[in-house]
Amino acid sequence: MGYSSELGNELLRENIAHMLSQYRGIPVQADEILITRGSQMALYLTALSLIQPGDVVLIENPGYAPAWQVLRQAGAQLIPIPVDDEGIQIEAVESVCRRTSVKALLTTPQHQFPTTVTLKADRRMALLELSHQYGFTIIEDDYDHEFHYGTKVPLPLASFAHGGPILYISSLSKLIAPAVRIGFVTGPPAFIQAAATLRSIIDRQGDNVLEQAVAELMQAGEIQKHARRALNVYRQRHAQTHQFLQQYLADAVTYRVPEGGLAYWIRFNQSRNIPELTKQLQQQGVSVIDTDAFSYEGAGLNALRIGFASLTSPEMEQVLQVLQKTL
Amino acid sequence: MGYSSELGNELLRENIAHMLSQYRGIPVQADEILITRGSQMALYLTALSLIQPGDVVLIENPGYAPAWQVLRQAGAQLIPIPVDDEGIQIEAVESVCRRTSVKALLTTPQHQFPTTVTLKADRRMALLELSHQYGFTIIEDDYDHEFHYGTKVPLPLASFAHGGPILYISSLSKLIAPAVRIGFVTGPPAFIQAAATLRSIIDRQGDNVLEQAVAELMQAGEIQKHARRALNVYRQRHAQTHQFLQQYLADAVTYRVPEGGLAYWIRFNQSRNIPELTKQLQQQGVSVIDTDAFSYEGAGLNALRIGFASLTSPEMEQVLQVLQKTL
Repeated sequence: MGYSSELGNELLRENIAHMLSQYRGIPVQADEILITRGSQMALYLTALSLIQPGDVVLIENPGYAPAWQVLRQAGAQLIPIPVDDEGIQIEAVESVCRRTSVKALLTTPQHQFPTTVTLKADRRMALLELSHQYGFTIIEDDYDHEFHYGTKVPLPLASFAHGGPILYISSLSKLIAPAVRIGFVTGPPAFIQAAATLRSIIDRQGDNVLEQAVAELMQAGEIQKHARRALNVYRQRHAQTHQFLQQYLADAVTYRVPEGGLAYWIRFNQSRNIPELTKQLQQQGVSVIDTDAFSYEGAGLNALRIGFASLTSPEMEQVLQVLQKTL
Repeated sequence: MGYSSELGNELLRENIAHMLSQYRGIPVQADEILITRGSQMALYLTALSLIQPGDVVLIENPGYAPAWQVLRQAGAQLIPIPVDDEGIQIEAVESVCRRTSVKALLTTPQHQFPTTVTLKADRRMALLELSHQYGFTIIEDDYDHEFHYGTKVPLPLASFAHGGPILYISSLSKLIAPAVRIGFVTGPPAFIQAAATLRSIIDRQGDNVLEQAVAELMQAGEIQKHARRALNVYRQRHAQTHQFLQQYLADAVTYRVPEGGLAYWIRFNQSRNIPELTKQLQQQGVSVIDTDAFSYEGAGLNALRIGFASLTSPEMEQVLQVLQKTL
């Protein structure tokens, strides 16, 4: 219950190092990991340690707006890169690199936020190649790695050694519960040390009791068992959502079945006022996020992100019936 | 276990508001309080919300070096103000105000860190007057308010309404346990909103489960009971430490009996090499902090801070015997 290491609980770092080495192809030691309060703080510490005011950082568009706020807070100049059905567009990355010095690129290759697209293998290789060639750092946010439904789970970019430096951010919050704020970042020792120093300035230490408890659960294999059970539940919900989307909204929307993650990204065939639709749904008890915030330009994306993690089959059916009726 | 308000748990904010109104003379509402991960984060959010790069901030010297790091991180230009046996020197504050524009002053009036001095009443009034006259913000860090042994507990500066703006930071960590990272800051609504927005960027939310638990313990009066018991234990340890200091070190050191807090500040009558002494004590199992870090100029303070909170009477006797022998 006293003061503890600024890197976070050691047993937890050992268990995360083991998980990354064994299951994600990222060979790291416990002292190359900094535990944080969720991936948001991991990104904040990463951004402030890496970025000097004025540095150019490429971001995915559409993307995770709270991450843009963090990068801007660090003084970054953001350049949006379009995302299509195969993930972030490599030509656009290269085009920017050719005309300006790029410090870093923030990407969510496993399940792109918000579009859910898994970055295709050839694009992964091309991105690593570009980071090597132009010397930019890849910040990889792998926020829900565990939840992938295909037979082949892609390895993180950070598992490939031949690119430039990669700072890899992930989280246990999606696996355990949003309120369990445990994220982490791995990277070169000098970076981890800088980030840890900053962390001690912001927030002296993490929750050592919680971290020890989670570490012991990982050590005993309980977290892994929970992950397998959760994956089975989510796989069912993933399939059911597809079925209900076909049943109720096949004519109204276009979507790709996501390879993983906890949401569908559905695009409306007709032009819709998304803020208005969001409000109407909320009045009927259906809570959805206004997706226009995910557009860098603030332009309408004419899409919704349908999260299925916390909805039972009857609940999801009801949600999509309400959506159908509202449309 | 889901996502929660960026201001922190509402029941906890209500209970803290009640505590501040009833026991510390600070009439605030629950929505004027931002819960943080300990007072370190409260200061970080305060500094980044208040300070523009280049702003002049006055700090106490000697003082709490980690706070200086936070202020520098926010871009502040620090000017140290000497602390004497009555607290921060008002003339020095006024002298700086006369020649330059001062944005803020960081102070620990209740039990100055590290010297333990309680700021005298006339200086409190003078400081409030200066903040009003020169328009600087007082950042009051009241990190161990509960532990005061005199019959009259001074009210925080923030309880006096006639000064300039006061941002009041405090913590429950000293009261419950270092690992229970619950701090808070109160201030004008616009400030709290700015700090809360920044908080959501850094660290989406606090530990809602912990905050709810602590709130329920406050609501039931358990925290207050614990505070009274702890105060009694600490009052005894405070008196015993004085007794042992007289018994073993009366000739070697000079000190004032602190009115409150959890440590004695002892100054050596002869000049000592404090880093070396610190090392020698640590080799004998006595953990003390190298106090030279508390000096803004890095000059030797020729003093030690003897914390008594976690030591039983026989342990403290042993510690001071070891110190006597080592001297």
